[in-house]
Amino acid sequence: MGKNKVTFDDIAKYTNFSKTTISRYFNNPDSLTVKNQEIIAQALIDLDYQENKLAKVLANGKSEFIGIIIPNLFLHYYAEMLNQILKTYETFGYKFLVFVSTDNEEAERKYIQELLAYKIEGMIILSHTIPSKELAESNIPIVTIEREDKYVNSVNTDNYMGAVQATSLLAKSNCDILLHINSDVHETTPSYGRIAGFRDICREYSIEHELILRNLGNSYHETVNCIQEVFGYIKKKYPGKNKGLFMSNDTHANIMLNLIFREYGMLPGEYRIIGFDDSPIAEEAIIPISTVGQQIEKIAYEAVALLVEQMNEQKKRRPKPQNGVIHKKITPILIRRETTE
Amino acid sequence: MGKNKVTFDDIAKYTNFSKTTISRYFNNPDSLTVKNQEIIAQALIDLDYQENKLAKVLANGKSEFIGIIIPNLFLHYYAEMLNQILKTYETFGYKFLVFVSTDNEEAERKYIQELLAYKIEGMIILSHTIPSKELAESNIPIVTIEREDKYVNSVNTDNYMGAVQATSLLAKSNCDILLHINSDVHETTPSYGRIAGFRDICREYSIEHELILRNLGNSYHETVNCIQEVFGYIKKKYPGKNKGLFMSNDTHANIMLNLIFREYGMLPGEYRIIGFDDSPIAEEAIIPISTVGQQIEKIAYEAVALLVEQMNEQKKRRPKPQNGVIHKKITPILIRRETTE
Repeated sequence: MGKNKVTFDDIAKYTNFSKTTISRYFNNPDSLTVKNQEIIAQALIDLDYQENKLAKVLANGKSEFIGIIIPNLFLHYYAEMLNQILKTYETFGYKFLVFVSTDNEEAERKYIQELLAYKIEGMIILSHTIPSKELAESNIPIVTIEREDKYVNSVNTDNYMGAVQATSLLAKSNCDILLHINSDVHETTPSYGRIAGFRDICREYSIEHELILRNLGNSYHETVNCIQEVFGYIKKKYPGKNKGLFMSNDTHANIMLNLIFREYGMLPGEYRIIGFDDSPIAEEAIIPISTVGQQIEKIAYEAVALLVEQMNEQKKRRPKPQNGVIHKKITPILIRRETTE
Repeated sequence: MGKNKVTFDDIAKYTNFSKTTISRYFNNPDSLTVKNQEIIAQALIDLDYQENKLAKVLANGKSEFIGIIIPNLFLHYYAEMLNQILKTYETFGYKFLVFVSTDNEEAERKYIQELLAYKIEGMIILSHTIPSKELAESNIPIVTIEREDKYVNSVNTDNYMGAVQATSLLAKSNCDILLHINSDVHETTPSYGRIAGFRDICREYSIEHELILRNLGNSYHETVNCIQEVFGYIKKKYPGKNKGLFMSNDTHANIMLNLIFREYGMLPGEYRIIGFDDSPIAEEAIIPISTVGQQIEKIAYEAVALLVEQMNEQKKRRPKPQNGVIHKKITPILIRRETTE
């Protein structure tokens, strides 16, 4: 296309500088005076010059690309996380090559090979497919978010602290029995902290409690059926008791609220509910749902910042090897709405 | 990093082929016998060779990059559209460089310059900021989705047909008066078809109707207040009448449903509601909401397919100039749930 035909030669002729000077402008602009930088910048506009960043990448190895693998964008949590990661372009200038995981290890290895072939400088991994041990071997700066992270750097919500906040709020809401409903999360996953935090606080303050850990389905309809069963079980087991329900996320909290609301035409005082995430559904529910809000903007920013730090280290002549892995934790924020007191 | 040090020389030595043969393997593999291709492929694995696609791009101009500018990922519609676009990697092999719009024209022009500097082969634009006339001048294949598209190719939902489906369903649901509540969408925007379709069907079948077009707020809280006002207005103006409400999207339909449900403890037969989009909120509402489902997967696929067609044309020695612009329309699907009969 026409625009790309402007060469260093053309710019040199137009400005009366040498080609070496033009080249220095692109590769080390501060070696020129501010005035000469301005003359060349103006010439680029006059000549309608289009930079070829790829050529520059090959010359200096700095692609300014970060690769992302995200599990899906159906869950608002991931969509908003990607949104906030992409927005860090304004701060750090890195561009993002994005892949959506298909939960298939082989496919994901192929994505990583593709990303490496494009000379990305670092990766942010949110998908759960490939073990962190294998990720660490890819020999490139990596930060993971909310997944198993034993061998790689990560930024996660402080899930344990979030569970402590949620459980304490329910305990203060005049409940006789506290229940945490979750899938049977593995201990190496950050969100296991929600289970541990609930259990520890209940034990510490001798609160009657039950952990209901089971497969809650893989589609919305399955999940509705699973939570309907849990609701039936709770109703039968704890009649007349004030029940505090700590749901593992806002989608599940909303399903439980709808089941109760449709049965009673309201949320009876006998049921208190709190979710996790602060997804839009918590606010948009028939009654706004109390929740533990993840600071998605902050998590995204910290993840990119941590990655940039490592990528900058890699650009040094003798990069320092990292001393152990870094796991940053971001404190969540308790949001009190109408389903707790 | 160590892995990149393997050169064509190393591969040639390892396989006993000439460097020219190795080069042909990368640039025109079909010029080698299948057996020789396999020998080289195995050597690449043995030597842990990492392809440098950037070098290849500079040589042949095919970056396999598509640039995307998307307005936000807060709305599920955009998140799911991006999801489905990214998934076309499995079919077409194109990689995606993604920017989130900040609704700022200057910023968005900068994104486009960045994308062009990375030799993207085409763009998919969902943000509304830059007029299609200016986009068309960027001299690169472009497809837009659900935005003003006079001068560029586009793939959109058939919004008019969707409105016809929604209005017809309400008309059959025993309603005395039909109302369409929307913001005052400009006629050049594809979603204006929702207003036109509603109005035309009501006129054609002489159904009593009213268009309520007004600013419905820029945040969830503002929107709740605006729709609360609309609810008050309707209640007062049409007492005792069976009211069919066609809301401009599912988020608005859910807000209206919640307002009515909280007032009556149920959805009285006097109110029928239908939304648009088939977002998760339509299914997750206190009563599952009828809606006009956009075929997001199909729209995304058709958009990328149309772009690939143009990009392939650009790779020919003498690309044919396109004869006028193409506007593809994808028929939406009526989804009947519990808020209509």
